[in-house]
Amino acid sequence: MVYDIAIIGTGPAGLEAAITAKVRNMNIIVFGSKKSSGKVFKAHTILNYLGLPEIPGDRMAKTFLDHAASMGVEITEEQITAVYAMGDTFALQGAVNMYEAKTVILATGVVAAKPYPNEDRLLGRGVSYCATCDAALYKGKTAVVIGSSAKEEPEADFMSEYAAKTYYIPLYKEEVHCRPEVEVLHVTPVDVLGENKVEKLLTKEGEIETDGVFILREAVAPGQLVPGLETEGPHVVVDIHMAASIPGCYAAGDIAGTPYQYIKAAGQGNTAALSAITYMQQKEAERRREEAKQ
Amino acid sequence: MVYDIAIIGTGPAGLEAAITAKVRNMNIIVFGSKKSSGKVFKAHTILNYLGLPEIPGDRMAKTFLDHAASMGVEITEEQITAVYAMGDTFALQGAVNMYEAKTVILATGVVAAKPYPNEDRLLGRGVSYCATCDAALYKGKTAVVIGSSAKEEPEADFMSEYAAKTYYIPLYKEEVHCRPEVEVLHVTPVDVLGENKVEKLLTKEGEIETDGVFILREAVAPGQLVPGLETEGPHVVVDIHMAASIPGCYAAGDIAGTPYQYIKAAGQGNTAALSAITYMQQKEAERRREEAKQ
Repeated sequence: MVYDIAIIGTGPAGLEAAITAKVRNMNIIVFGSKKSSGKVFKAHTILNYLGLPEIPGDRMAKTFLDHAASMGVEITEEQITAVYAMGDTFALQGAVNMYEAKTVILATGVVAAKPYPNEDRLLGRGVSYCATCDAALYKGKTAVVIGSSAKEEPEADFMSEYAAKTYYIPLYKEEVHCRPEVEVLHVTPVDVLGENKVEKLLTKEGEIETDGVFILREAVAPGQLVPGLETEGPHVVVDIHMAASIPGCYAAGDIAGTPYQYIKAAGQGNTAALSAITYMQQKEAERRREEAKQ
Repeated sequence: MVYDIAIIGTGPAGLEAAITAKVRNMNIIVFGSKKSSGKVFKAHTILNYLGLPEIPGDRMAKTFLDHAASMGVEITEEQITAVYAMGDTFALQGAVNMYEAKTVILATGVVAAKPYPNEDRLLGRGVSYCATCDAALYKGKTAVVIGSSAKEEPEADFMSEYAAKTYYIPLYKEEVHCRPEVEVLHVTPVDVLGENKVEKLLTKEGEIETDGVFILREAVAPGQLVPGLETEGPHVVVDIHMAASIPGCYAAGDIAGTPYQYIKAAGQGNTAALSAITYMQQKEAERRREEAKQ
């Protein structure tokens, strides 16, 4: 089954895109959480979502979900780990299944953590987001692994099988259970330093000399989710119609840039859905014209 | 008195801009109608404003106005006829008074040109400017779609998926490529007829019985309102932050381009207000830096 639109994310942007697509009779699949987005339902009172005065986040989430459900929107709770542009359609790699859609709307929100000042400049020059991928390159060297949750600890363990010295910096409170070869440091990273390649990790507590810094954060950056997509920091580059750099791919909400506001996210979700529909209509019209020529 | 933000328009874009500015303690003036916008309160049921399921236009207008009023937004019912960029501020020429503001948000909607004599009276009573919005209401009925250019043909196609009978009247010379279910009529519309709701379309060639008349036309350019402003047809050219070509001037809603949708308008109003605030903050920071130099 090839869906018309695959929507990734169930915050205001994703849910608005979904109901707009439903009004237009599109065949859609929506990936996310049946609780909407954590950011919405954990929010305090929202004052400026026009039409819903002084509404607490959890009630807003329920209002949005009820609206979507009343229009037949179903939510698939499977994480999408990668989206591949394959020419005419997109392949979506889920944790369990593969999906296919003519268009994709990215409405995943943004990664909360800000990149370190020199992270982007030194990316690929000692900065990496995957320790297991690069461990073999660190034979006899020093590596620092920064983990945002306990599920990153095996990455440090694996690194220590190659590196001469592996430091692990947990950015969480729970006790760490790494191999004894891994030295756990309870410090707060501030920046990655180095001229042409990583030389040091700067922390509030001092500097650590190292050859590599592995930064393992919760969410996937949009460029990693959709290989080849033009991004700017944590955001997908979009035009006023919410079109991203790959034809048929759209973005809406926080992932499409600031301001991080619920009503702005919903508005962009609406635009993204209608742009996706126009795109499919134009492709269909082109196809008919080509057929008529023959 | 120099206002921080002058907002022109009281549809969803203008009202959302107003409440967002209020949350940020801005000193604002809002020009428009105490009934919101005619397009909103005359609209049929709106299905895809996330959080307000299946809401009739008049109730939506009241909901928006109540929300704005609860946050202290006051509406000045004076028509602004021209906005002049004067360097540091803008001068707004009203029908009676002159006003001055540091920033301006244009949220006037797009004005349909040369209405048919009974068009305004029957607006919302069978006359509409968006076929795709209302198509679902025309199940088993007859609809006439009047298009000013070939790009309106998909609207007739979409209508024909619902209506028992769809007529399409092109107001242009090019060949029409609608679905075979759409009957194309080469006639010249003169007026919309009906007592309390649309009954007929009057054309030079005779009368057509119909339940609805969808008038899809180009609209008047906003460059007349703000001399020197970069426009594209009936729209203000804006970037993703809703900034127009004159610094300090922003646009949101229908005037900022398609799609003509309420939630998209509200989202853009939010972005425009926050962009205007950022602009003022940056100017203030620059001013302080200049002062510090001296």
